[in-house]
Amino acid sequence: MRLRLDLAYDGRDFHGWAMQPDLRTVQGVLEEALATVLRTATPVTCAGRTDTGVHARGQVVHLDLSEEALAGAAGRDGADPTGGLVGRLNGLLDDDVHVRAATRVPDSFDARFGALWRRYAYRIADRSAEVDPLVRGHVVTWPRHLDDAGCQEAASGLVGEHDFAAYCKRREGASTVRRLLDLDWARQPDGLVEVGVRADAFCHHMVRSLMGALVAVGEGRRPPSWPSEVLLAGTRDPGVLVMPAHGLTLEEVAYPPDDELAARSARTRVVRT
Amino acid sequence: MRLRLDLAYDGRDFHGWAMQPDLRTVQGVLEEALATVLRTATPVTCAGRTDTGVHARGQVVHLDLSEEALAGAAGRDGADPTGGLVGRLNGLLDDDVHVRAATRVPDSFDARFGALWRRYAYRIADRSAEVDPLVRGHVVTWPRHLDDAGCQEAASGLVGEHDFAAYCKRREGASTVRRLLDLDWARQPDGLVEVGVRADAFCHHMVRSLMGALVAVGEGRRPPSWPSEVLLAGTRDPGVLVMPAHGLTLEEVAYPPDDELAARSARTRVVRT
Repeated sequence: MRLRLDLAYDGRDFHGWAMQPDLRTVQGVLEEALATVLRTATPVTCAGRTDTGVHARGQVVHLDLSEEALAGAAGRDGADPTGGLVGRLNGLLDDDVHVRAATRVPDSFDARFGALWRRYAYRIADRSAEVDPLVRGHVVTWPRHLDDAGCQEAASGLVGEHDFAAYCKRREGASTVRRLLDLDWARQPDGLVEVGVRADAFCHHMVRSLMGALVAVGEGRRPPSWPSEVLLAGTRDPGVLVMPAHGLTLEEVAYPPDDELAARSARTRVVRT
Repeated sequence: MRLRLDLAYDGRDFHGWAMQPDLRTVQGVLEEALATVLRTATPVTCAGRTDTGVHARGQVVHLDLSEEALAGAAGRDGADPTGGLVGRLNGLLDDDVHVRAATRVPDSFDARFGALWRRYAYRIADRSAEVDPLVRGHVVTWPRHLDDAGCQEAASGLVGEHDFAAYCKRREGASTVRRLLDLDWARQPDGLVEVGVRADAFCHHMVRSLMGALVAVGEGRRPPSWPSEVLLAGTRDPGVLVMPAHGLTLEEVAYPPDDELAARSARTRVVRT
């Protein structure tokens, strides 16, 4: 049987999602906890392979296990085996990573290839009067004021299906065409900037590079048309800084209804490979 | 001349507000930074002497300095000396404490005795599905669900002017009569409990003890009438736990208009002593 886990984590003390020898990673600590609880090695597949220092509130993974392993993990409280599994995992995990839910899903559910879209948020405190030390772990403090109107204009020019090669760390043989559904630069009531970014998928460093282009506009160093010009040029521009990882949080991943899961996964696999 | 500073800090790595030899305190690091920038020892007086581990977004202090010292601190940017002071202080302070603003105030402004009220928030995540590791530094994770209706009923019975001796760590010769203006148990859209607490002033451990009484009700261990019964009994009850410091944040301090400052301070001094 297949299970979906919903996870939240503070990325600060992790070397990113993906397992690496001798480094603390989210996948590493999760699979270690699963091995303890289920008494067997249980690999997981995630929706978004977050980089070192990137956080998540809505990471999704899937894993396969036997009914017997799940019943054993739940212990005496046999009435709610998935709830029992969540409790045991959280008992083993450090407090910077938390399993929010475990749900039985069809075998056709694929956390990675089945996703319709991923939504990230990037958070910036650019006004000294509104810097809040309590959220400094996931909000970047920026030393200069950023112009909202310019950033909003620049952001709207990037939405749509494009080749984002100019904003991606290249990987041999992989497509850099992505459908950017939203890029919303929004000043919050508490004075922070929260940029909502939603796409079918992201390539490596894409959100942090897009943020770097917007911040250049926000500071007045570049005109609002510049991020789109960089996109069209199709090659990485030294004027685009990759913004710090700790401002970025994977907030949500969306999936189609159960009866469309298999078709979605099949289509995504073809497009990406 | 007198200055008001507005401060925010993460209390985790501080031994509270008040200066102590060989311990890192907020007053200690702030006065050290002021001594460096102003080149003279400059004591500060605060609105709320937060305990070890308690945070602040809206701490207020006052301090006295000469026009020459302020002009010198501002450096070359003489146009905005208070802005220059803020920038230099933040440049010296670690990132767990931040000066949000510096404002010239009348000599009658007293951060402690002039305050009309203080507002704190206490935050609890009592549902595993909504635990967010990104805010675990200022939100207490509670292992059992808390009943909102019971807590709201209990909270409303505590509002008003009372002798809060049952909820205070006793100090010889000090009054424990306080006017509790608000005690609002509110479930937030993200599932967290945020309790807003506003009073003319607080005695030691008062908010955390009130929270302990509400949580006993929320867990169903005590009836909603119990926190008021403890209040009336007037002595500390072993059933009231002092809740953890890190859930508590000083959010705001209010002052009267300038022409009422002196009268307010005079009156408060008489009441408290």
